This record gives sequence, structure tokens and C-alpha cells, in this order.
Amino acid sequence: METRPLSSTIDEIRPSHDPERAATIQHRLDHLTKPRGSLGRLEEIVMRYGLARQQTDIEAPRKSLFVFCADHGIAAEGVSAYPQDVTHQMVANFLAGGAAINVLCRQHDIDPVIVDMGVNHTFDPGQGIIDRKIGLGTRNFLHEPAMSVEDAARSVEAGIGLARAAARLHYSLLAVGEMGIANTTSASAVTAAMTGRDPAELAGAGSGITEDQRGHKADVIRRAIERHCPSAEDPLGVLAAVGGFEIGGICGFLLGAAACKTPVIVDGFIASAGALLAVGLAPDLRDYLFLSHESAEPGHQVITERIGLNPLLSLGMRLGEGTGAALAAGVIDAALRLYREMATFASAGVSDQTSG
Amino acid sequence: METRPLSSTIDEIRPSHDPERAATIQHRLDHLTKPRGSLGRLEEIVMRYGLARQQTDIEAPRKSLFVFCADHGIAAEGVSAYPQDVTHQMVANFLAGGAAINVLCRQHDIDPVIVDMGVNHTFDPGQGIIDRKIGLGTRNFLHEPAMSVEDAARSVEAGIGLARAAARLHYSLLAVGEMGIANTTSASAVTAAMTGRDPAELAGAGSGITEDQRGHKADVIRRAIERHCPSAEDPLGVLAAVGGFEIGGICGFLLGAAACKTPVIVDGFIASAGALLAVGLAPDLRDYLFLSHESAEPGHQVITERIGLNPLLSLGMRLGEGTGAALAAGVIDAALRLYREMATFASAGVSDQTSG
Repeated sequence: METRPLSSTIDEIRPSHDPERAATIQHRLDHLTKPRGSLGRLEEIVMRYGLARQQTDIEAPRKSLFVFCADHGIAAEGVSAYPQDVTHQMVANFLAGGAAINVLCRQHDIDPVIVDMGVNHTFDPGQGIIDRKIGLGTRNFLHEPAMSVEDAARSVEAGIGLARAAARLHYSLLAVGEMGIANTTSASAVTAAMTGRDPAELAGAGSGITEDQRGHKADVIRRAIERHCPSAEDPLGVLAAVGGFEIGGICGFLLGAAACKTPVIVDGFIASAGALLAVGLAPDLRDYLFLSHESAEPGHQVITERIGLNPLLSLGMRLGEGTGAALAAGVIDAALRLYREMATFASAGVSDQTSG
Repeated sequence: METRPLSSTIDEIRPSHDPERAATIQHRLDHLTKPRGSLGRLEEIVMRYGLARQQTDIEAPRKSLFVFCADHGIAAEGVSAYPQDVTHQMVANFLAGGAAINVLCRQHDIDPVIVDMGVNHTFDPGQGIIDRKIGLGTRNFLHEPAMSVEDAARSVEAGIGLARAAARLHYSLLAVGEMGIANTTSASAVTAAMTGRDPAELAGAGSGITEDQRGHKADVIRRAIERHCPSAEDPLGVLAAVGGFEIGGICGFLLGAAACKTPVIVDGFIASAGALLAVGLAPDLRDYLFLSHESAEPGHQVITERIGLNPLLSLGMRLGEGTGAALAAGVIDAALRLYREMATFASAGVSDQTSG
């Protein structure tokens, strides 16, 4: 019962490419009043978005950013610079509008949605948080699996359901971010399991730990991988062994969005770990993704290379929440506006290159 | 008479650094609800802007982008993919609101100002263009200096006057872009003269010339440099020998903005050639500059290294007009909003790192 929505969602995900539609989009791009190709990656964005949405006349995107929040049992191992209480305190900050992600969503006309996937705190339902709580945080994956395989599937399916709901509300450009103390440790462990890379290469400074603490973090991940032996062939098993409820939610959200032909902007390292699992489940999903920015976390580049996409921005950010995705939404918005609003050589009476 | 405003403007430009103000800004940045430093380059932007504006409480920026337009005699040598008429046709497109720069200014709430520094066309004054015309285009610098030293100074002083006017109108974040067929050739020649680098390393594809044409362009620049022997010690002499009226206008605009303590976003390669001249005249000017993006033109990296600043974006753009600067304005706006609007650890009741 639990796995039906997941497998049927995976079956719905198809490559976005369509040669005729691509030719129509390229023709319009080439006749706007600019040298061919001179908008660089902005032109790639238009093509990717149009193919994902199956549109050649591209509407103004309606944008929403989902922040998946959860706690992590691995925080007990002293892998973060902040106490676990900061997760629910920051969620309260999101709900009050005072966090970085709130500021950037206001700037870029993005509707923020805060999702409790498993924070170790009971929120007042009147606060506007979306309750998809799987538990009060994962277990400590140094000693036991972070969650059961059933809970892993539930977290992914919760994400699928949210993406389908967003598509029904006619959001056409989605974005994902996250909050969860110690979740760079979980994301690094997921990355190690999915790519076989050494945890010492992947574990970064997270929210600001010392070099000694970073060595400890890498050691914790190495021991967890040795204990659980997760297989890259089984992304749900990896999620259960060393993942997090918010990482599962993000993985599902990306699957659901791709099934609904809605492009999604992936924030930094943790969100990208969710993308790594989702691409493992449905490789064609990548046609629907935008990677927002190069995170300062060392594991992030390993993921972007594996997924095979270049992030749009490189601003040395390592905050999470969806902050990089919100900034990237501004760039994507710019690309789509240029495509919609620029004059053509013919309409503006400007001589094209060939007429010179 | 002509050079008085220039030398007095240069005298007004001072380094922006102030240790007490920097400490106040850093203290606020460190107490916003985020790990210290986790906003990466956005935090550098806040510091640079606050020091330039001499503010620790930073207001919402009022933004304007000046597009300096002019024609180039060197276009007669077949160095561009487009005929010279495209300069005035594109200016008409700017005035009609149909160009890329118009779209991006609308998105980012930037007031565009179109300046005729020397287009080979007479515009109807009712069209809203700002007339600072020095002539109907420069002379062909393969055979004679592009302009007299007097006209070089006039173009720079026109730019100074425009920046001072913008500051009087309370614009607090300025940006510069340009339009001028064949002006990558002029910008490459300015860069060669100011840095001593080989024109073959600097000449790029511009608006889309072939590899053969690129070799011809490099050869034209090399012969011009040999003919005029411009000295890097004399930026006005370089401007006169191989520059353009819009490059002079941009150079002056940056000087005037820095004298008025107003930060300016520099667009791509051509605008950066103007910045290279301006930094040559007043090295402290660099404290007031933001470099918007890495241009696809090979000479651009030579300039950014010489100026000693890293561009904010890298999107493979090579359009000019100010399009990269407008996108960067969105990023700078984001940084300043975060500084103004984010809650602090204390105001949001979030535990800081030290209390963990």
C-alpha cells in the first residue's frame, strides 16, 4: 500500500526532450534583439523550463518554495555547532517571517511553505506549518538505522503528495530547501553511500565546526557506513540507514514535481542529497531540475558531478533553508521574462547579423 | 577649463574603509539568525556597500542603470558581426522598451537612462535620450587616434556630470552598461594598452565573429597599438588613441559615483575597460565598484585580475547593455534586504552557537 504512489510516480516521469518544441524555442531565442547565444546560461534556462513545462509560449512562473524540516538522532554525536533546539527555534523564525528564506521569498515573489517532516517539537497547528511529521527526529544512525524502510517510504510519499498539491494549485516553478540541525552529517552519509566516496572528502564545516570536529564527523559517517552497508542500488535503503525525514521529503517532492512536469530548483548540499536519491530512483528526473548554487560544502560538488548539472550561482553560501534556490529563482525569472518580453529583430526594426 | 572637474573629482575619491563602521556592520551580520559567514559573498556585498555609503543602517537602495552608447570608426575594418546601423537601431529599441536591458530593469526596479555619447545618428530629443554627444562616432584608430585628448576629457567629464546628477537624485546604487558596434575591439585595445597583454589573448568573439575574423581583429588591435604607442601611465591618452566615447563616459561615471560615495555595478567587458581606465586615474575608486559577472570575452578576466575584484555572477553572458549589471543588482538587493530584514538570535529567541 505505502509503496504504490512511489512506484506509479516513478513510472510517470519521462524525459522532457522534444525536438520540434526545442526547435521552436531555439528559433524564438535566435530572433530576439541580441547576438545569438549571448544570454549564455539564461538561454539554457529557457530551453530547460520550456521543455519541462511542454510550452513554447512561456507564461510568468508562479513560484513556491517548500522548506522541509526535521531533527536528526546523529546530533547526539556532537557533529553540529548548534544544539538540536535550534531546529524548532528556526522553524518558529520561518513562521514569524524573520529568517533569511522569508526575506528572499518576499523579494522574489515566492510563496514559502514550511513542512514539519519530523522536528523534535510539537507545533501549534495555528502557526501555519504543514504537518507531515513521521516522528520526533530520526534515530542515531551511528548505532541503528536512522529510520525504518517503511518510514523512509512514508517520508518520500509525503513529499510526492506535496508536489502534486502544488501542481494542482498551478505553481509552475517549485523550489526546495531544508532545516535540521546535524543534517549535513546525514547528507554527507547519503552522498558517501550513493557514490562510494570517502567520508573524509565529503564532510564539511556545516554550520561552522572546527577542523577537529570535522574529522570526528567524517569518522562518525565512516563507522555508520560500515555498520549499515547501504547499497547505492537501493536509494530507499540508503535513506532508511543514514538519511533524514526532510531528505526523504525532498526526494519525494522532486519525484512528484517531475511527474507533474513542474521544474524544481534544488537548494544546496542537503537538498542535493535528496536529489541524488531521487535521480537514483528515476534518472529522467534530472530534466526537471535546476541546481541553484555551488554550496561551500565539499560534498556538494561530488553530487553535482554525479547528477550531471551545473549550478547557476556560486556565492560561497552554506546556509540552507532554500536561500540559494530563492536567489536562483530570480535568475530563472529573468531568463523567462527576457524570452517573453524582448522584441525580435523584425518587430524592433533592427538589422540581424545575416543582413550585415 | 575642461580638465578641472576631472582632477577635482579624482581628489575627492577616498578609500572607503573605516574600522569602527566595519566592526558595527560585522557585529550585526554575526548576530542575524544564520551561522556566521554562511551567506558567503552576500555578506561581503553588505560590507562593501555599507562602507561605500558610510552607513551601518542600510536603506533600501534606489537604483539606476546608465547605458552609454556610441559608434566606432574601427567598425570600418570589419571587426564586428553586425553593421554600424545596429547601434542606433538598438538605441531606438532601448527607448521603446524592447531590449534585454529594459526587461531586466523592469524586473529589478531599476530606472534605465540611455545616454548618447556619440552615436552616428541624430535622435529626436522627444524620445527621452540624454544627449552628451561628443561626435558622430570615433575615428578609425587603425589610421589615426580615435579622438583628440580634449574629446577624451570631455567624454570623461560628461560621465562625471551624470553620476553627480544621479547622486543628487538620491540614487544609492548605480550601474553602467553600453552599446556600440565594434566596441569590443576598442575595449580590447584599451585593455592591451593598459596591461601590456598580447591582443591575440584579448580579442574575443564579440557579437559572434568567426575564428578568422577574430585573428583579423587581434591584428587590427596590434597594429593600432604599434602606431599610437599609448602609455598605461596616461589613461586619458589611451582613451584618446584607441578608446570610445561610451568608454570615456563610463570611466567618468565611475569616478563621479565614487566621489559621491555611491557604489556602482560594472557590467561586462566594455564597461570593465572603462573601469580599468578609471582605476588607472584613481586607484581608490575600486572600493566603490561591484563587478557584475564574468563575461565570455577573454579580455575580461585580464581586467578583473588587474582591478583585483571577483565578479558576482558567471552565466556565460556576452550581451552588454548592462544586462549582467542588472542581474547583479538583484543579488546586491538580496544581500541588503537580508541585512535589514532578518531577525537576530536575540529577537527571534534562537540559541546562538556559543550557547550550545
